[in-house]
Amino acid sequence: MTRIFNFAAGPSAMPLPVLEQAASEMTDWHGVGYSILEMSHRSKEFMGIYRETVEMLRELYGIPEEYEVMFVQGGGHLQFAMIPLNFAVGGIGNYAVDGVWSRKAFNEAQKIGEAAEVACTELRAPRQDELAVTDGAAYLYYCSNETVNGIRYWYRPEVNVPLIADMSSDFLSQPVDISKYGLIFAGAQKNFGPAGLTVVIARKDLLGRAESTTPTMLDYQTYANFESMYNTPPTFAIYISHLVCKWLLAEGGVKEMERRSILKSQKIYDAIDNSDGFYYNNIEKRSRSRMNVVFNLKNEELNQLFIEEALQKGLANIKGHRIVGGMRASLYNAVSVEAAEALADYMKAFAERHS
Amino acid sequence: MTRIFNFAAGPSAMPLPVLEQAASEMTDWHGVGYSILEMSHRSKEFMGIYRETVEMLRELYGIPEEYEVMFVQGGGHLQFAMIPLNFAVGGIGNYAVDGVWSRKAFNEAQKIGEAAEVACTELRAPRQDELAVTDGAAYLYYCSNETVNGIRYWYRPEVNVPLIADMSSDFLSQPVDISKYGLIFAGAQKNFGPAGLTVVIARKDLLGRAESTTPTMLDYQTYANFESMYNTPPTFAIYISHLVCKWLLAEGGVKEMERRSILKSQKIYDAIDNSDGFYYNNIEKRSRSRMNVVFNLKNEELNQLFIEEALQKGLANIKGHRIVGGMRASLYNAVSVEAAEALADYMKAFAERHS
Repeated sequence: MTRIFNFAAGPSAMPLPVLEQAASEMTDWHGVGYSILEMSHRSKEFMGIYRETVEMLRELYGIPEEYEVMFVQGGGHLQFAMIPLNFAVGGIGNYAVDGVWSRKAFNEAQKIGEAAEVACTELRAPRQDELAVTDGAAYLYYCSNETVNGIRYWYRPEVNVPLIADMSSDFLSQPVDISKYGLIFAGAQKNFGPAGLTVVIARKDLLGRAESTTPTMLDYQTYANFESMYNTPPTFAIYISHLVCKWLLAEGGVKEMERRSILKSQKIYDAIDNSDGFYYNNIEKRSRSRMNVVFNLKNEELNQLFIEEALQKGLANIKGHRIVGGMRASLYNAVSVEAAEALADYMKAFAERHS
Repeated sequence: MTRIFNFAAGPSAMPLPVLEQAASEMTDWHGVGYSILEMSHRSKEFMGIYRETVEMLRELYGIPEEYEVMFVQGGGHLQFAMIPLNFAVGGIGNYAVDGVWSRKAFNEAQKIGEAAEVACTELRAPRQDELAVTDGAAYLYYCSNETVNGIRYWYRPEVNVPLIADMSSDFLSQPVDISKYGLIFAGAQKNFGPAGLTVVIARKDLLGRAESTTPTMLDYQTYANFESMYNTPPTFAIYISHLVCKWLLAEGGVKEMERRSILKSQKIYDAIDNSDGFYYNNIEKRSRSRMNVVFNLKNEELNQLFIEEALQKGLANIKGHRIVGGMRASLYNAVSVEAAEALADYMKAFAERHS
């Protein structure tokens, strides 16, 4: 086995000890005589895994008792529908748009109910003074980190309506004061676990407002009432997330992840900014993502060679999203400082060879 | 490692070679240097796995070209909503109810639109002559195998509207003439793969009829248009299902699975019927499920002992669903003839000791 440095945007790098443990107990989980994949979601063993995962999440983020922690299927795209169905009943969903993912959420909200775009920025997150909510606003929705565009909010918006955030790509990468939010959600496949699992953390008093015609599985109250087990949850994904939470706690939690994220992203941004224009990134500096560093080569003809030589050096999946092109290095929690250093070194050497 | 016989109703037994392969390539899939869990769903490697899975399903069932094969999240419960949202627009969903799962589907359809119960039976599937659809029927919905109640349809209903079937618990356990159906679906966690994946096979000309306000992820057309990759699918679940399909083809396909299912279930039903009433099963004989054999002990005080001694003999998860009580032996494809024999032998010995 030769493991390489994986900068994929999601599904993305996972901690090696998590994968090794999953492999070692794949045919027999803790001596029960069968796999976690073959275990009833209502067994005491699985319920233990499930509840410990919730508890570890509560510990990692300091989630107050007034908040539900729920596991949902359907990815961010289903959240884009569930949020207006549950929170915009009789009101207007307000959206701050600064990239692909907040744009998608706004479009879906318009499809389903009434929605307004309160800000629309490019190459930066909106400033607080640009976030004036509309009359009848039900909530303000924003995406704390735009995975495709490489943009992050450097601050938490303050508004007098519930604040809703898509934290898919910066989940568990920094401390978050959950008490300031109405709801946050995150697709697992960046910092938490396998694709097919979405974590939702929501203030309990905001739930239960969906119309009676709302599909049962699109009503957050269903998840709150049944510990996310109204139907069979994605058990293997939850099991892996359980291992990831353990790893996170052992590594020092979200404060330590934030320290590493700053360090890792700084290495790549330095390689860009010190390249005399060989590489460039046009994002406003304070809005630069720590999770997804996007950059371009001035000479686009070198793109393919840059990707190929990187792979030869064990640096995989650095091609940018098809919508924006160029390169993207995703630096999620499981991507080591060593990996970021190796990429930065490669960038410098490549620039020297081709300048 | 000691593997035991696992009769769980779902998530349930999987083929050991599938688990062993998953374990062996967990940290490095086919030499790429990272796990399948860490691989982009849009990579050529994963797209290969995805497309091969669809192709193997087409081969196993002989699925005609006019049908889409789609992978959806959200389990059967989300299908209960998606079916009326996509198929009952301007019409009435017709439901044949003979157990817990068809009941749930009918309830959800009533919540969402107009629905009618055309048959309601207990301890047996409805007969063909009981299935008269209503005026304005958009489809007839039935559940081919009721997992909780242990009831199966011994025939395929014939109606002059699209036929829709929940095949979650008998998926890939017998040949099915897909061309007779408008849509079939199956939660993966019985015969196909991990929880968190649902397979939908639908006639293409029936898609695209959902109202424009339908959430994007609840419109089958979204899945058809984007090869089930409008958003990130549950990649690990699809990967496991890929291995399961390979295993099924190597073992002889659905015809061979049907042969084994008849054999396995017959062993348990014989143990029940030849027990002089120590065990009983009240299901009409032709409606008896081959996948989920439910039975009771005449002396209910022995229930706990029966379960405990079974586990000591390596026979796990035979407790019945909490709604119906008693016992249930689920005999999915990955449960061997040897396992069914061991359970039947245990049942005989237990009855002898306690008669």
